[in-house]
Parts: sequence; C-alpha cells; structure tokens
Amino acid sequence: MTDTESLVVSSDPKHPANLIVELCKLFYDNNWVTGTGGGISIREGDTVWLAPSGVQKERMQPTDMFVMDLKSRDYLRRSPTFKPSACTPLFLSAYTLRDAGACIHTHSQAAVMCTLLYDKVFKISNIEQIKAIPQVVESGYLSFFDTLEIPIIENTAHEEDLTDTLQAAIKEYPTCTAVLVRRHGIYVWGETVWKAKVYNEAIDYLLELAVKMIQMGIDPEGGIGSEKQGKFFRGLQG
Amino acid sequence: MTDTESLVVSSDPKHPANLIVELCKLFYDNNWVTGTGGGISIREGDTVWLAPSGVQKERMQPTDMFVMDLKSRDYLRRSPTFKPSACTPLFLSAYTLRDAGACIHTHSQAAVMCTLLYDKVFKISNIEQIKAIPQVVESGYLSFFDTLEIPIIENTAHEEDLTDTLQAAIKEYPTCTAVLVRRHGIYVWGETVWKAKVYNEAIDYLLELAVKMIQMGIDPEGGIGSEKQGKFFRGLQG
Amino acid sequence: MTDTESLVVSSDPKHPANLIVELCKLFYDNNWVTGTGGGISIREGDTVWLAPSGVQKERMQPTDMFVMDLKSRDYLRRSPTFKPSACTPLFLSAYTLRDAGACIHTHSQAAVMCTLLYDKVFKISNIEQIKAIPQVVESGYLSFFDTLEIPIIENTAHEEDLTDTLQAAIKEYPTCTAVLVRRHGIYVWGETVWKAKVYNEAIDYLLELAVKMIQMGIDPEGGIGSEKQGKFFRGLQG
Amino acid sequence: MTDTESLVVSSDPKHPANLIVELCKLFYDNNWVTGTGGGISIREGDTVWLAPSGVQKERMQPTDMFVMDLKSRDYLRRSPTFKPSACTPLFLSAYTLRDAGACIHTHSQAAVMCTLLYDKVFKISNIEQIKAIPQVVESGYLSFFDTLEIPIIENTAHEEDLTDTLQAAIKEYPTCTAVLVRRHGIYVWGETVWKAKVYNEAIDYLLELAVKMIQMGIDPEGGIGSEKQGKFFRGLQG
Repeated sequence: MTDTESLVVSSDPKHPANLIVELCKLFYDNNWVTGTGGGISIREGDTVWLAPSGVQKERMQPTDMFVMDLKSRDYLRRSPTFKPSACTPLFLSAYTLRDAGACIHTHSQAAVMCTLLYDKVFKISNIEQIKAIPQVVESGYLSFFDTLEIPIIENTAHEEDLTDTLQAAIKEYPTCTAVLVRRHGIYVWGETVWKAKVYNEAIDYLLELAVKMIQMGIDPEGGIGSEKQGKFFRGLQG
Repeated sequence: MTDTESLVVSSDPKHPANLIVELCKLFYDNNWVTGTGGGISIREGDTVWLAPSGVQKERMQPTDMFVMDLKSRDYLRRSPTFKPSACTPLFLSAYTLRDAGACIHTHSQAAVMCTLLYDKVFKISNIEQIKAIPQVVESGYLSFFDTLEIPIIENTAHEEDLTDTLQAAIKEYPTCTAVLVRRHGIYVWGETVWKAKVYNEAIDYLLELAVKMIQMGIDPEGGIGSEKQGKFFRGLQG
Repeated sequence: MTDTESLVVSSDPKHPANLIVELCKLFYDNNWVTGTGGGISIREGDTVWLAPSGVQKERMQPTDMFVMDLKSRDYLRRSPTFKPSACTPLFLSAYTLRDAGACIHTHSQAAVMCTLLYDKVFKISNIEQIKAIPQVVESGYLSFFDTLEIPIIENTAHEEDLTDTLQAAIKEYPTCTAVLVRRHGIYVWGETVWKAKVYNEAIDYLLELAVKMIQMGIDPEGGIGSEKQGKFFRGLQG
Repeated sequence: MTDTESLVVSSDPKHPANLIVELCKLFYDNNWVTGTGGGISIREGDTVWLAPSGVQKERMQPTDMFVMDLKSRDYLRRSPTFKPSACTPLFLSAYTLRDAGACIHTHSQAAVMCTLLYDKVFKISNIEQIKAIPQVVESGYLSFFDTLEIPIIENTAHEEDLTDTLQAAIKEYPTCTAVLVRRHGIYVWGETVWKAKVYNEAIDYLLELAVKMIQMGIDPEGGIGSEKQGKFFRGLQG
C-alpha cells in the first residue's frame, strides 16, 4: 500500500473514507442522491476527503475518493477512476467560512419543492424537530419557539459557479447551517460528520413537513395557533 | 463487567437494552425518529431502561442506556456519553399512572399533521385497524363500530414541562393509550414493549389514513356511509 | 419432533410454514400488515396452513402456525401460543369455492382508500399492469383493453361474519380473484402462493394508481383518451 | 456445466446474468417491477441477455435468463422454465438503432402518471437532475438550462406490437434515451448497464418531481422564475 493509499484504505469503519461510503448508501436509500446526484465531504484537521464526480453513490468504494490539503488546495490523493466533484469549492466554503467538519449535498425532492414554493428564504416555526438545529453563532440549539431560516440561492449552469452566492448567503445568514439552491437541492454542514448528518436529517424532515403543510393550507411559518386557519382544520369536530 | 454494566449488557436479544436498540432502528427506518428525535423506555418491575438524549436512534448501543429505579427515581446506571432524555418524566408518567411496561415517543409526520388538522382530540371511526387498540379500562380491544379518541396537548419549550398536561390528559381520557403533542409528535404506551409497539404501529396507520381521508374530502370520524359525501366519491360509476 | 411439529418445522425454505413467515415479513415492509393486521394462508391438497390471530407479522415463527384439514375442518396442529385467526373461514371460502392454493389478506391503505372512493365495485381500465391479473373463468390473463373489477363488500364487527357476503361476492363475480372490504382491506387468492402474491402485488399497484389518478382528476375506468379531460392534463404544452 | 450454461452461470458478480438479478431486486424495491411487471436486458458485443416473461423480478435466478445472438436473433440459451419476454423486440430496437449496451423497462407509477398528464412529449426544464441525462447525439450531458424531452407513444394490446412506434419515436427524437408508453411505463437505455441504470434513476426522479410540481400548480417546463406563478408560492413571506 502506497502512502497515498493509506489515506483512503482503513479497516476502521470510522475512517472518513469508510464513513463517506456508508453514509452515501444511506442517502441513496433516502432518494437523496440517486442518478449520481449529490455528494459529501469530511474534514479532519487540514485533510479533506471528497466523494468524486459522477459516481453511483451507493456503489462507491473508499478508493474512489479524492483527498485534499485544505490549506494548499493540493490533492494529496486522486481517484484513479473519477473526476473531482464540481461541489468541491462549495464544500471548502463550509470549511473555511464555518470551520465545518463535514458537508453534505443532496438533491432531496423535499428541498427542491421548497425552493419552488418559497422565494428568498425557507422559514418554518414552532415545530419540535427544529430543536435539532444549532444556533451556530452561540452554542446550543434552536428552541421550539424559534423560526428556522434557510436562505435560497439561484442555481447556475456549473455547480462551481455557486461558490460566490453560497459564500454570500453564509455571510448574510450567520446562524444558518444550510443553504438551499433553487431547482437543485441543499447543502448542509456541521462541526462533525455526525452533526452534519443529524442536521441534514432534521432539516429534510422539516422541508418535507413544510410541503405537506402547504398542501393542506397550513402556513409553515404561521406559528402556534395559525393551524386553525387551515382550510381542512376540524375545529367543529374536536 | 461491573454490576451496573450487567444492567445493559446481555447476549439475550430480548433484554430491554437490546430491544430498545432493535426497535429504535426500526423506528428510524419508519422516519419516526430521524435527526435524534423521539425516544423509548422499557420497564420491568421497578427497573426502567431509558434511551438517552441527543443520540442517533439507529446507531445507539445498549451501553448508551440509562437505567433508573422507578420508586426512588435514582439512576442505577448512567450513560457514560449522553445526557438523560427530557422525555424521562413523561415515560415515568405512563408507568406510574397506567402501570405501563413500555412507552414510545416519535416525531411521526402523520402525528404532527393530525395535530395541525384536529383541535382538542384526534378521532377516527369504523376502520378495521382500530381493533388493534385496547379499551384500557376493561380488557379487550376497540370494536369496528367504536371511535378511537386520542387527546392532543399543547407543546412546551422544554419537553419535561409537558408532564403536567400529559398527566392531566391521561386522567381525563382514562381509556387512551396515547397522547398527541401539537407540532411535536406522539407518546404511546402499553402493558409490554411489544404491546406498546403494536399500538404505536396501529395508531400511526390510523393517523396516516386520517390525513389521506381528509385530503380526499372524507371525514375520518364521519362513520359508515359518510364516505359517500366525499367530493371524489364515485357513486355514479359503481 | 412430534408428528404434528413436522407439519410446521422444515429446513426447506419452500415449506408452507416457512413461506408464510417469509411473505409476512415482506408484507410488513410494504405497510400492509402492521399492528398485527392482515393474514395469510397456504393450502396443499387438503392441508391448510394458517397464520394465527394477533401475531406481529414480521416476527412470526413457523411454530406459531395452525394447520387444518380442509375436509374435516379439524386442526391437525394448533399454535401453542396464539388463537386461530378470525380470517380462517374467509381463507377457506377461497379454497372451497375457487380451489385456491393460497389466500392473502392485507390492510393496505390503498385498498382502504379505494373502498372509500368507490361504491359497489372497484374498476380500472387500460393500464398495462392489469395484464398480471387472471381471467379466472378461462385460462389466461386480462388484456390491456379489459376492465378489472373487484367487488366491495361492507365490513362487519367480527371478521368471521364477512363469510356470507364474501362468498356471495365470489359467486356474483365469477372472474374476480379478490374482494375488497369497506374500511378494512382486501382478500386476494390464487392457484398457488406465488400466484396469489403476484396478483396481490399487481392489484395493490392498481389500487394505489387509482387513488393517484382520482387525486389528479383522471377517471380510472374512463379508458384510453379520457385522461385528456383531466384537470391537470397539459394538452397545450405537448 | 454445459456450454450454454456457462452463458448464465458465473461467480463474477459483474457477469450480465448476475447483474440482471441484482438490478431487478433493486427495481423491485423501488416499486418499479412488482407483480412480474417490467424487464431488463444487457448486451455485450453481439450477445444479449434477457430476463424472461412472467418472472417475479426479485426472485429471478441467473439460470432463468435467455441469451440471444444479436445478429442472427437465434437463442444461444433458453430459460428452462419461462417463456421469452414480449419486451424482447423493444430491447433489440435500442441495440440496433442506438448501439445501446442495456435497456431497462419499468412500470414506474411516476412514469404512468406522467403519460396521463402529458400529451405527446414529457418535458421538464431547469432542474439540476437533468444534468445526469446524456445529449446522445453528441458527447456530454444536458445542461441546467436545457429541457429534457421524452416522447410518449400509445400502448398496444401486445407488448411486441409497440416495436414500430417505439422505433419511430427513437428516430423522430434522435437525442432521447428513453420512451414513455401511455398507461404502461417507460423504456430507458444507455451505452452500458450502469449508464442505463443511472439514466433510469435520474429520469424517474424527474418524472416523480414533475407530478409533484403539477400537483402544486407549478409548470415543469415553465422554466426559471415560472414557479412564482404557482398558486402556493409564498412570495409575500420570503
């Protein structure tokens, strides 16, 4: 095994290259990364693991991975088969601007639908599940009485061209841990890979719920009691 | 293995610590406890096993569990990694007020949607699946001609603050085996862990069906024949 | 192993007791038999295997099964743990009236929804999948140009009381291989267990599709070209 | 092992007969080929592997496969159990007209629904996932700013009778890598089995998304900004 192979080959299931493989299988089963869509990256110190471009996410192998040095932006190890992911500068933005430990990108249909239903910002209020989302600028999590806000940026022809607007959104919304991309999907990051995964799950739950609420005439950001204005609300029967 | 470790380490798959692990994986696959949401507890005699706070439910290990003495409320064993679940006083309420053997808490989207569609009480009538729900105050199960009622309580900022209203609902609805929490989810309990799991499955089936019925203009508590008033009912074609 | 145990214990995965266990796990994953709902029976010659009442379908063991002699209606082997299923006389009706080799009963939500949307008969026309459904009175299958008809009977308080109306429906619709039960679910049978399973899958696919068509304003029995009257049909864009 | 058996029996998981078995299990889990619906074929050089007719796709064995010589149309190996698939001439059309390496046929409900919502051509524009679909007549993939077009042909009583209209559609739409069949399903092909599988996944994602968009009053081919005309669009809240 060469030196660079040791960056991606490990018997430890918690090695970043193995975790990327494991999590991409899970995301595939969730219908988030079918058709080679989406991507994921993990950072440990200044070392960054990156799933490659155009790979079937559920069939990826650790040896398909790219490994990059965050400071020099040099590849420490290249995939022998695949090209680098166009998501790479977006993942790096989460690392440099937010000191994230991992970044997940999916084509979740709930995310895409919310970008077709909301204008500049996705908002949802007073749903228990938002308590799994961090406050980011201070330690701790959103409370039940808070509103979750996720900025929506416009899509571009080439994924790497999203970098500027993604970075602008990250700066404009200092508390956000995710950015939605219209007609495309979502980027979610966190301090560690597990935190990124949990945030992504909780946010997708909320995006999915928001679509259902809107379908039933309930305002996701209307707040406590606003459900009574829903056209299907059964006030008389209760 | 220390004495307290023997409370959570067992080769018996039916040991409460192992069952909690197994069932949480199942609930995760059902989208009921993603993003660390939800929880579960099992009681045997005066010993109570509790899944911890903030844990990824599908990755939990038996050694992550808390174990409590029901009478003294002292922890017999603490999780070395996690904090106690804020659901703890709610689970204990099911044990002390109803002599339950297990209590399950999920963030099921069908449950949340029903709390946004119903006012004080979820009701559904004349669906075969309600025959899996117990009558509670006497032995036996609901009949096809009965109406299932599940009280809905308002959510609070901190989960433990639900205790008083949950206990009040349990007392006001002596036949209920579940309580819905608005914009949050559901608590379901039963005499044993398997009964709690079956009740939870049957109730979630009915919550999901109720949402579909309401979407199609059918009144879930309208009773036999009321479906003919549904706006999509195909009386002329039959 | 006693003589009666040999009726349910076999190392052959195709033994009826093992097939019932395998298929119930599959049906559970399809959300058709959660909460102990539903059931299944297989017949070979005059020997009938029956899943018991009140069992978690995904956790059933071959030794939980009842075995009955079709002619005498005597139990050749009783479950040591469970009571006989109330579906038993319904399964037997499929054997005596139709010479079926297996009968499947599910609480499929697509089936329940269709009983709330159709009056006396479920009908769907000109969908390729109906070619998997047999003509029954003669050999062969429905053609793409045929209409599938499945009678709907009213539910009763006790499942065994469905026997008379189920038998009447079987006689009134000599070509049907299934009967829907309003607010309850569906019974599907076939010459062999695999045929019953395939018919059940194809019928559930069509029930699910019919609900979607009705939601989109398309008449499931309207036939070829009627989709153009659907309120969402995009005639101008095509 | 006879000579012809070696055409379907191999310990290599990448052997076409093994890949067909593996992929059909995956498609079954996606609800695309339940009830024996759908089919798949792989070509290597002039040798064509074909799943048989009427087989349960998730239970197929490599030895159930037919093998054909593309030039002579002679069977090199026949399934001992099953009849040839009526899809065979359709699969061969993709090989002869497009030099495809594999062809997948599913009864996907998203595909069927789109044939009931669109007239002559399915169209969707400006969704990131279309970048997984090839341009076909030149190398490379669709861009985010392109419109994906998939022709829709009318169904026939016998699947083999689709051959002429499928071939006509392939010629009329030289850039298409798929053809929809009204009230039936979809055919998707690609240069290799993996490309066909990726195209099928990406197209099904887009068909599913199109149904959701239409349900929410958003025009799938309306293009960037047209979502603001959607009846549920939340312009005021953003």
